[in-house]
Amino acid sequence: MRVALIGYGNVGRAFARLLEQKRAVFPFRIVGIHTARHGTAYDPKGLPVEPVFGAAAGSVEEFLDRAKSDVAIEITTLNPQTGEPALSHIRAAFARGCHVITANKGPIAHAFSALNEEARSAGVAFRFESTVMDGAPVFNMVRNSLPGVKILGFTGVLNSTTKIVLDAMRAGRSMAEGIEEAQRLGVAEADAGYDIDGWDAAAKTAVLANVLMEARVTPQDVDRHGIGSVTTEEVLALKREHKTLCLVSRGQATAEGLKMQVRPEILEDTDLLASLHGTSNLILLHTDLMGTVGTVALSPGVEQTAYGLFSDLVDIAKSV
Amino acid sequence: MRVALIGYGNVGRAFARLLEQKRAVFPFRIVGIHTARHGTAYDPKGLPVEPVFGAAAGSVEEFLDRAKSDVAIEITTLNPQTGEPALSHIRAAFARGCHVITANKGPIAHAFSALNEEARSAGVAFRFESTVMDGAPVFNMVRNSLPGVKILGFTGVLNSTTKIVLDAMRAGRSMAEGIEEAQRLGVAEADAGYDIDGWDAAAKTAVLANVLMEARVTPQDVDRHGIGSVTTEEVLALKREHKTLCLVSRGQATAEGLKMQVRPEILEDTDLLASLHGTSNLILLHTDLMGTVGTVALSPGVEQTAYGLFSDLVDIAKSV
Repeated sequence: MRVALIGYGNVGRAFARLLEQKRAVFPFRIVGIHTARHGTAYDPKGLPVEPVFGAAAGSVEEFLDRAKSDVAIEITTLNPQTGEPALSHIRAAFARGCHVITANKGPIAHAFSALNEEARSAGVAFRFESTVMDGAPVFNMVRNSLPGVKILGFTGVLNSTTKIVLDAMRAGRSMAEGIEEAQRLGVAEADAGYDIDGWDAAAKTAVLANVLMEARVTPQDVDRHGIGSVTTEEVLALKREHKTLCLVSRGQATAEGLKMQVRPEILEDTDLLASLHGTSNLILLHTDLMGTVGTVALSPGVEQTAYGLFSDLVDIAKSV
Repeated sequence: MRVALIGYGNVGRAFARLLEQKRAVFPFRIVGIHTARHGTAYDPKGLPVEPVFGAAAGSVEEFLDRAKSDVAIEITTLNPQTGEPALSHIRAAFARGCHVITANKGPIAHAFSALNEEARSAGVAFRFESTVMDGAPVFNMVRNSLPGVKILGFTGVLNSTTKIVLDAMRAGRSMAEGIEEAQRLGVAEADAGYDIDGWDAAAKTAVLANVLMEARVTPQDVDRHGIGSVTTEEVLALKREHKTLCLVSRGQATAEGLKMQVRPEILEDTDLLASLHGTSNLILLHTDLMGTVGTVALSPGVEQTAYGLFSDLVDIAKSV
C-alpha cells in the first residue's frame, strides 16, 4: 500500500523508521510527505526516513493529488479547540478515495460521527488508534476482539502531564516545577494549560464517548475540572493519609443520557487507577457481557504512538 | 454455525444463555451437548439452555459423529497433570473436521504446538481465549490487534485463589480460613493445593509461553514456588511496611532461552500488580514495538469465561 503523510514530526519519523524496519513482512511504502515547515517530498518508489524536501505543495489537496496514495496519515499539530486543520485534511483525503489514519484526537473529539459517515459514503476506512493511549489497542481491540459487547461506560487515566505534575507535588515541589519537568520530558506542550485545565483529558473523553458509545459530543460537553487550583500542601496532606490525587476521565450511560466528566479524584494509594505514573495510562471499559475489562500501557512514548499508526495500517490492509 | 458442547457445567450453561440472548445478531445454535453425568442431548434445530438429556453417548467420538457440528467446544473438568481427557476430545473433533474452542488450559499448557499443527493440517480453527484471564481479550488481542509485534516476555497476576487467601491473611485470618473463603466463593476447587502450590499459575504461564512465545513447554518446566509455607505473621509484617505478597507469573526470552517462573513476590502496596484483588487479574506483555501493554479484567466470573468462548466463536465465524 502507498502511504502519504500529512505532517512529519517526531511521530512521523518514528513511523517511517518502523515501516523501514518491517518492510520485508509488511510491504507499505511512503510515497509522499507534506509539511508546512520543511516542504514536500514525493517518490512513488518510496521515500527514505530522511527525505530531501522540495518546495511545499500549495495545499494539502495539491499534495494528495500528486502523491496518489492509497492511505493518508494525518499527524499535523493539534488545534484542540476546533479539530482544524486536521478535519479539512481528512476530508480532502476522503474526497480522493484515500483511507485515512490519524493520531490527531481533535477531529475524533469534534466530529467523529460525521467523519465516520463520510468515510462510509466514500467507501474508505478511517482509523485512529493512536488518539487515546498512545497506540495501545483500544478501538481495534473493541472492534476486533469484543464482538457483540455493549460499552456502558468507561474510566480512564489518560493524561500524562497531570500525573507527572501531581507526582512532583507529592515529592514536595511546586506545580510550576512539575510543569517544567513534564515539558523537559517532552510530554507537556509549551502551553501546559491544555493539560492542567483538563482539556486533553476532556478531548480523550469525547473521543471515547463518540467512538465507543455512539455519542455526538465535543470536549466542551464534558463536565471538566482541571488541577489548576490544587496546592502542594493539599497533595502532601493526602499523601499522609495514603491517598493520591488523580485526574480521572469517566463516561457513563444513564437513564438521562450519557454523563461525561473529567476531574481530580481522591483515590487510595493502593487503587489500580493510582498505580499509573508518568506516561503510563489505563482505560477500563464497563460492558454488558465482559464486565469491566481494559487496556494498560506502561511508559509509552513516541514509538508506541507510531506503532498505533502501523497497527491501523495493517488493520486497513487486512480489511480491504 | 452449529455448535457441539463437550461438558456442560456452569460455564456451559452461561454460554448457552449468552447464545440465546444474542441469537438475533449471531445465528449460532447448539446442536449437541454431551456430559458424563447427565447424559447427552441432540437437536439439529437447536437445543434450549435446559435440554432434556437422553442416555449418554458411548464416547465423545460417537457424540461428535451424531451431533454433526461445525464447531466443538471443550469445557470438561480439567485434569491439570496431563491435559487429558480434553486433549483426546480436541483431537477427536479435529479428526471430524470440526473447529475447536476450549476453556480448558490443560491441552494448551501441555501440547499447544502439536495441537496447533494438527488443526492446521485438518484445515480447522483452534481457539482458547478463556484459558487465561477468564475470557478477556489476550490471545485474540495479540492475533488481531498487535500485528508485527514480537512478545519478549510477560508478567501476570493470574490466580484468584491465592489473591483471596493472601488478602484473608492480610486481614489476620489463617491460610485455612482464606482457602475456605475461596471455596465458598466458588473460586477454589475442593483440592486447593492446585492453586496454593502454584500449579494453576504455572499452567497459565505455560499457556502464555506456548502461545505467545512459540515455546514447547509444560507446567512442569516452570520454576514454581507456591504460597503454602507463607504465614499470617509474615503477611502482617509486610503489611506494616506497606508491602503486599502476590503470586506473580513471569516469562522472559533470554540469551539462554525462555525463563519462566511463578513465585510469591514482595511488592509495594502501590504497585500495579498489587492492586488486583479477588478474581481480578492482569497480564502485561513486554514487546519490541508496543513497549509494555496489557489487559486487565475486574472481578470476572463465569459469564466472562462464557463470553470468551463466544468471542472465539465469532472470531472463527469471521475467519472461515
